[in-house]
Amino acid sequence: MSLHITILTVCPEMTAGLTGWPVIRRAIDKGVLQLDVVDIRTYAPGSFRHVDDAPFGGGPGMVLRCQPVLDALRALKEPGGRTVLLSPAGHRFCQADAHRFAGEKHLVLLCGHYEGIDARILPFVDEEVSVGDFILTGGEPAAMMITDSIARLLPGALRQSSTQEESFENGLLEYPQYTQPAVYEGMEVPAVLRSGDHEKIRRYRLTESLRLTRARRPDLLEARREAGLMTAEEQKILEQLDGPGEAGEKGTGS
Amino acid sequence: MSLHITILTVCPEMTAGLTGWPVIRRAIDKGVLQLDVVDIRTYAPGSFRHVDDAPFGGGPGMVLRCQPVLDALRALKEPGGRTVLLSPAGHRFCQADAHRFAGEKHLVLLCGHYEGIDARILPFVDEEVSVGDFILTGGEPAAMMITDSIARLLPGALRQSSTQEESFENGLLEYPQYTQPAVYEGMEVPAVLRSGDHEKIRRYRLTESLRLTRARRPDLLEARREAGLMTAEEQKILEQLDGPGEAGEKGTGS
Repeated sequence: MSLHITILTVCPEMTAGLTGWPVIRRAIDKGVLQLDVVDIRTYAPGSFRHVDDAPFGGGPGMVLRCQPVLDALRALKEPGGRTVLLSPAGHRFCQADAHRFAGEKHLVLLCGHYEGIDARILPFVDEEVSVGDFILTGGEPAAMMITDSIARLLPGALRQSSTQEESFENGLLEYPQYTQPAVYEGMEVPAVLRSGDHEKIRRYRLTESLRLTRARRPDLLEARREAGLMTAEEQKILEQLDGPGEAGEKGTGS
Repeated sequence: MSLHITILTVCPEMTAGLTGWPVIRRAIDKGVLQLDVVDIRTYAPGSFRHVDDAPFGGGPGMVLRCQPVLDALRALKEPGGRTVLLSPAGHRFCQADAHRFAGEKHLVLLCGHYEGIDARILPFVDEEVSVGDFILTGGEPAAMMITDSIARLLPGALRQSSTQEESFENGLLEYPQYTQPAVYEGMEVPAVLRSGDHEKIRRYRLTESLRLTRARRPDLLEARREAGLMTAEEQKILEQLDGPGEAGEKGTGS
């Protein structure tokens, strides 16, 4: 079983390095990912290969035309495939989407460009996703980023199976990490991490994850509570964090 | 006046094509952007150039070490420069950040990689930004995307000065766009857009922007209202949209 991703773009040169990205390369080499980048111009007839034109009603910029995009989708999309338009008006892409997309057979990532795409293309799109409230020159950077987030979930793409301990996989921000040396320019690694006491380390990390998430992303805690995923231990730690003597998000390491 | 962006990474090959992205290329050619990609390994001494090591306290993956990152920051960051770490724990990057970053003199985009970076590096970072609740193999795709969003705001980088009419610049999602032909496979362009009546077109587009934003991103309307930016006209259109006979997000074009 493998995933086929087709990036459909008027600017294929933007994705030139993508198959060299380490995790994407490994996924391709392992046979779990097939990645194609297709130039929409291929589907525009005539020597000028016009893919865009001025908008009806006036205004600056150019709009992607129906014909080359719809012809490309018809030619490329495999049965059961899913067409995803990168668009600022789409729903916010998140880790659950990465998992869902990783389970598809064929994903067509359609990149908007210029001022936008002809709205008559939208009925042929299965889903619109956004990567945030900001403006790009096109959907290409978002499509590349999403491809990276999906590729790392495919079996064998990561050297280590470490996807379970990261931010968002358990609905919390990640605890702070430290590596050698134990003291650097006077800054010490929290003693508990050098104690060798696995239970203490586990509890310290959970506490710091909760502390950071509470300070920066209380919405994640709320969502975890509402989904019934918060454990009794987490609830107890949060109550202690709310107690006296706690201020700010800086941990004490004890 | 120009902006200098330094992308600091352990995986410079991921950004290989970046200077060829159309808007970034034009910004560089116009002299409004200087873009450097620096390999953190350059600052790791010894023939092995170790940039990462196992985390204290155990667990999978590798953590970026203090020494090469802090030495790189000290060597590269210009006076008055701003160091921005790409991190899932950062605040959500948005268009206001793109504008703010476009006004900086020197921006160092520090890409996390592997399991994370040594937490003792954080005090040397001015700001942490996130591009969403999903996991990447590193900060590189996000740094590239942010560079694109900034570059297009630099003077002369866009062929047309069209940044004012897009999503988020006025706090609303963009109205639907249409281009030639007027009828494609039976699908017609809304008649108003072919009327030549500029006032009617303006009002149609505003109505469709509000309709789409109300359906998909009511939070944007709320923010606009709270900031005191909503006009009396917008308020009136929204009240009409709330009235009888309106359902769903599909416009009628009349």
